[in-house]
Amino acid sequence: MIKRGLLVLALLSPVAADEGMWLFNQAPAERLRKDYGFELTQPWLDHVMKSCVRFNNGGSGGFVSEDGLVVTNHHIGEDSLQKLSTPGKDLVQLGFLARSQSEERKCPDMELNVLQSIEDVTAQVEGSVKPGMTVEQAANARRSFTSALEKSESEKTGLRCDVVTLYLGGAYHLYRYKKYTDVRLVMAPEQAAAFYGGDADNFEYPRYDFDVCFFRVYENGKPLHGNPYLKWNPGGTRPGDLVFVAGHPGRTNRLETMARLQHLRDLTLPFRLAALKSEEMALRLYSQRGPEQRRQAQSELYGIANARKAYTGQYEGLLDHGLMSIKQQREDSHRQSAAAVNPAFETVVKAQKSLSEYEKDYYLLEQRLAVQGTAFEFARHLARWSNEKTRANGDRLREYRESNQDSLWQEVLSPAEIFPDLEVAQLTASLSFAAEVLGGEHPTTQLLLAGKSPEARANELVRGSSVTKLAGRKRYKEMTAAELKAQQDPMIDLAFAIDEASRKVRRRYELEVAEPELGAYAQIARSQFTVQGKDLAPDATFTLRLAYGRVAGYRDANRQIPWATTLGQLFANARLHGNEEPFRLPKRWWNREKQLDPKMSYDFVSTADTIGGNSGSPVLNRQAEVVGVNFDRNRFGLTRNFLYSDQQARHVAVHSPAVLHILERVYNAERLADEMRLGHFPTR
Amino acid sequence: MIKRGLLVLALLSPVAADEGMWLFNQAPAERLRKDYGFELTQPWLDHVMKSCVRFNNGGSGGFVSEDGLVVTNHHIGEDSLQKLSTPGKDLVQLGFLARSQSEERKCPDMELNVLQSIEDVTAQVEGSVKPGMTVEQAANARRSFTSALEKSESEKTGLRCDVVTLYLGGAYHLYRYKKYTDVRLVMAPEQAAAFYGGDADNFEYPRYDFDVCFFRVYENGKPLHGNPYLKWNPGGTRPGDLVFVAGHPGRTNRLETMARLQHLRDLTLPFRLAALKSEEMALRLYSQRGPEQRRQAQSELYGIANARKAYTGQYEGLLDHGLMSIKQQREDSHRQSAAAVNPAFETVVKAQKSLSEYEKDYYLLEQRLAVQGTAFEFARHLARWSNEKTRANGDRLREYRESNQDSLWQEVLSPAEIFPDLEVAQLTASLSFAAEVLGGEHPTTQLLLAGKSPEARANELVRGSSVTKLAGRKRYKEMTAAELKAQQDPMIDLAFAIDEASRKVRRRYELEVAEPELGAYAQIARSQFTVQGKDLAPDATFTLRLAYGRVAGYRDANRQIPWATTLGQLFANARLHGNEEPFRLPKRWWNREKQLDPKMSYDFVSTADTIGGNSGSPVLNRQAEVVGVNFDRNRFGLTRNFLYSDQQARHVAVHSPAVLHILERVYNAERLADEMRLGHFPTR
Repeated sequence: MIKRGLLVLALLSPVAADEGMWLFNQAPAERLRKDYGFELTQPWLDHVMKSCVRFNNGGSGGFVSEDGLVVTNHHIGEDSLQKLSTPGKDLVQLGFLARSQSEERKCPDMELNVLQSIEDVTAQVEGSVKPGMTVEQAANARRSFTSALEKSESEKTGLRCDVVTLYLGGAYHLYRYKKYTDVRLVMAPEQAAAFYGGDADNFEYPRYDFDVCFFRVYENGKPLHGNPYLKWNPGGTRPGDLVFVAGHPGRTNRLETMARLQHLRDLTLPFRLAALKSEEMALRLYSQRGPEQRRQAQSELYGIANARKAYTGQYEGLLDHGLMSIKQQREDSHRQSAAAVNPAFETVVKAQKSLSEYEKDYYLLEQRLAVQGTAFEFARHLARWSNEKTRANGDRLREYRESNQDSLWQEVLSPAEIFPDLEVAQLTASLSFAAEVLGGEHPTTQLLLAGKSPEARANELVRGSSVTKLAGRKRYKEMTAAELKAQQDPMIDLAFAIDEASRKVRRRYELEVAEPELGAYAQIARSQFTVQGKDLAPDATFTLRLAYGRVAGYRDANRQIPWATTLGQLFANARLHGNEEPFRLPKRWWNREKQLDPKMSYDFVSTADTIGGNSGSPVLNRQAEVVGVNFDRNRFGLTRNFLYSDQQARHVAVHSPAVLHILERVYNAERLADEMRLGHFPTR
Repeated sequence: MIKRGLLVLALLSPVAADEGMWLFNQAPAERLRKDYGFELTQPWLDHVMKSCVRFNNGGSGGFVSEDGLVVTNHHIGEDSLQKLSTPGKDLVQLGFLARSQSEERKCPDMELNVLQSIEDVTAQVEGSVKPGMTVEQAANARRSFTSALEKSESEKTGLRCDVVTLYLGGAYHLYRYKKYTDVRLVMAPEQAAAFYGGDADNFEYPRYDFDVCFFRVYENGKPLHGNPYLKWNPGGTRPGDLVFVAGHPGRTNRLETMARLQHLRDLTLPFRLAALKSEEMALRLYSQRGPEQRRQAQSELYGIANARKAYTGQYEGLLDHGLMSIKQQREDSHRQSAAAVNPAFETVVKAQKSLSEYEKDYYLLEQRLAVQGTAFEFARHLARWSNEKTRANGDRLREYRESNQDSLWQEVLSPAEIFPDLEVAQLTASLSFAAEVLGGEHPTTQLLLAGKSPEARANELVRGSSVTKLAGRKRYKEMTAAELKAQQDPMIDLAFAIDEASRKVRRRYELEVAEPELGAYAQIARSQFTVQGKDLAPDATFTLRLAYGRVAGYRDANRQIPWATTLGQLFANARLHGNEEPFRLPKRWWNREKQLDPKMSYDFVSTADTIGGNSGSPVLNRQAEVVGVNFDRNRFGLTRNFLYSDQQARHVAVHSPAVLHILERVYNAERLADEMRLGHFPTR
């Protein structure tokens, strides 16, 4: 009883203990000094910032040698592992080790970003909005300004430049990145070791995963040399230690209002979950057809299953009156203490109400839930590009502006193979899902299905399209809209057919939800600033953040859950499950069991504040040395999107000493381990 | 082109070639004479009728020896196999063979019915409705009459007596069954052999499944002796042969109107599919936790995955304009040719419109989609029984009337174990699903969740209830409603809490949909009679039916699909899939490969008209000898609910010679094979 009371009190304080995914230019120096006696310095921050890596497919990583070696998670590398696989040689399942530098394999379409500097441009962006502008005019003004700024900054510096919206519109910062696209695979364990426990253990703890993967960044055909890097600490960490997680958390919703949370609970999440379940089912069935099908689908399937589990956790959290009443109390207290903020809250109420009317269309069409698969994704880009290319840069949809073109074509013109059978399976399920949502006689259903069953229609679209071939996409990219339409490519035709409806709903979303909420949240955030100043981290935006916390176990159902698991426990767990999937260790591991230290700590937890996108983030000690590689949260952390707590919620990381131990004893990867110990190529 | 034209013509004729799941008292003698030169006699029909068996968990089977031996499918026996399993000894996975009669294992709660006679009681039932009665009064009158008739007939004959509604209210027949509850397991193969290809191959062909299972019926502790039985034909059948399928098809919708089909397409099926996907996901995750969890969940999971695949096929068929336009043309032509029938069609339109308003509540509450699992199912029965027991027999909900009490308590007081962890997993998913559908603030959601997250609430409900123990259920059965409420059993409390809403929506369904449609369909059926006479089989009702057809392959995507697969192809297929799940043959089969005839035909197809519920049906030749055991349809057969076609749609059966061959060569089950060859216990 007392415990519960304390918990509620702790949660009611505006920022709980180790809460926060902090900006590198607004780092929590005062809190670290007070709570941990740690002096955060500018050189420390600069060094870590330039040593961290963003994986543009949605993850994080860090340089761990001055010769361009980067560590991340296996599940972040998986997309590339799959693209480097061939029938009969499935690198996701088999793993990979480059025995020499010449064996390192170039990934077909990977992009890494390394942050170089951050500049606050809030005043300039807001200055582009003139008094008396309508909401739409204001949005256009901001957009034109940021788009021009990104372009001019990029031309000036040769860096990738993004204006990042923080505090949901409360601030705008310019991020300048070095961008690398020659990225090569160095080492990956077998998925069975990296993702031991599979979907069943995902977002759970205790865990026993070797979720690491190593790449090397190349420049001009040679390993990148001399970039700042994080030293690999061979000793690791201990309970009670202060640790940092530096990475790219994707999205949190802590500033969001009750109206938005209720909308998420009652509309967005149920709808997204239904779509995910349909897609997951289709991918699972496809994977079961054989090893080759599994190879083709596994990366997609991993992502879907992971999202389904994360959303389920969020959804269940939003149903819990405990969590919701804390959020409600905070909002009430904020609104009572600052009456001026009330209209902003009401704006969100109105925006969410508007969204209810067309949200499903927005997701089905503009977010492509109705037409899943790579083929349609590319077909839409090509169809849209044929129109967008005729427009001025500032008037284009965001993804077709100059500053985004490189990333766009890196993706659309990737040589990675598209698998027609897989496309048909995904498309069949999503077309069916769309019909389930809209009804069989809805005009959109008629456009999508053209009177055929979903399977027949999916076959017609995929098998009749040249979008599945790189040569076809290259040809289409150069065409005018009229030329493209004359191709009679059914997938392209579908992209054109639904484009008007899709753009319309996107526009409505931007005008009635995104833009008004931008303004409203800016007010809410500003109102919070007046109370907390900058002692409040903005919600996550898939940009570099610094989190910190204590290495610590926790109690669950009257059991003490330890701060770390051990290698001995890994083998015991596999035996307990009869070494059956998803608890099946690769043969190589069984062969090497005797060579491994059973007491070696393996995966560990801390209270640092993370979320999806932090996968692969280096976990650092006070000296900015790597003591772990973050790869997951436990299930108590699934509601972190809305509310941080350090009672039971933890992130989970692979421990740095275990990584070296396993590389040496299981994989005979001495060359790689040596490079990590030395911080550069071992001389011979 | 010409082929397609012919297909459409064939489908437009009111009854296509081999269409029909015929009543044994209205058998298609004339058609069989004309199309196959076969003389159907009364002794033939009586013999087959009394040799067939209904499995009350939803399947069919047949006596194959005069000593009570019954054959069915493995997937029909699976429920009992699971209940006879113990941790570490999973009979579903391992299979079972009784080496002697004393080793046969009694199933905890199986009920078999054997039909003895059918009587047309349409005139009497309709006579109970007096002119001037309201819809509700008419329904009550019919219900009281049939309930009294069932009771008096049952007392008179000592048989289970059911009044069956045929032609959706066009006719009422009284079915009298012998009922057997001492049923013992004789032989089951490993699921890996019975369900080879798993979910991936379910509803597909070519197939390679040994989907058979043998039970023995006992009476007074001894094997039932002298019941009519079907001779096992050791030679099997050949392409072009006439075959019969005698079994218990569950439900078809061929008489249903466009209004109903559109409703199914746009509301019922999407909703049911969403629920199934949620439940399947939960069961799959649970199964992955380990072998013991898989053992607990597998039977449920099989049923859910099977339904999901079947509904998906139906749903996709309803989206196909080809199928829908055939149905539309038939309906138009019927309505034009018989103007008097139009009000009946309009009644269905109105009923379906009414259903749209509360269908989700009906399924969530009354059909328990919100509260899945055995524990709540039993809790509801116990809570309702405490009220229903105080009412007169005719006033009770159908399942609590005298005639249904034996079956009810056979189920609720089954000693089969209830697994709390599995219950929590199912309940968590279904409570979450209900909240997704209703929204977080809906009063029903509040009742279901009581402010907790679905997982927390599911734990509270399951762990705090005595319903999961047989002793608890026995105690509760004897209590009054007041006594039961005083127990403070959370699962019972929930059953009471939602009972008013649940009964209300059931009542509304019965009054606004079931009853008016009963009348309307009776008119539609009668109107069809005037055209076709009794040359029209009623929709399936999970009662004994006779279907017939030709053994024949078909063409698919320009390939000729053969009438049968072979044992050699089974092994080749397993090799092709690297012997990986779900295409993994048990070790025993690999060990015996050399002893098997690779040319032996294994699974085969015919055009006979089947549907779910026909699983385990004996497939018979002209002499009423068993030439196969039906176990599935191919995917073209999935739309059989609405429309029969013999172009590509086929049912799939295990071939009788292969069954003997495999029993002898793989399982060393000579004793069993001898009994099947002889038709009685082998003398020693």
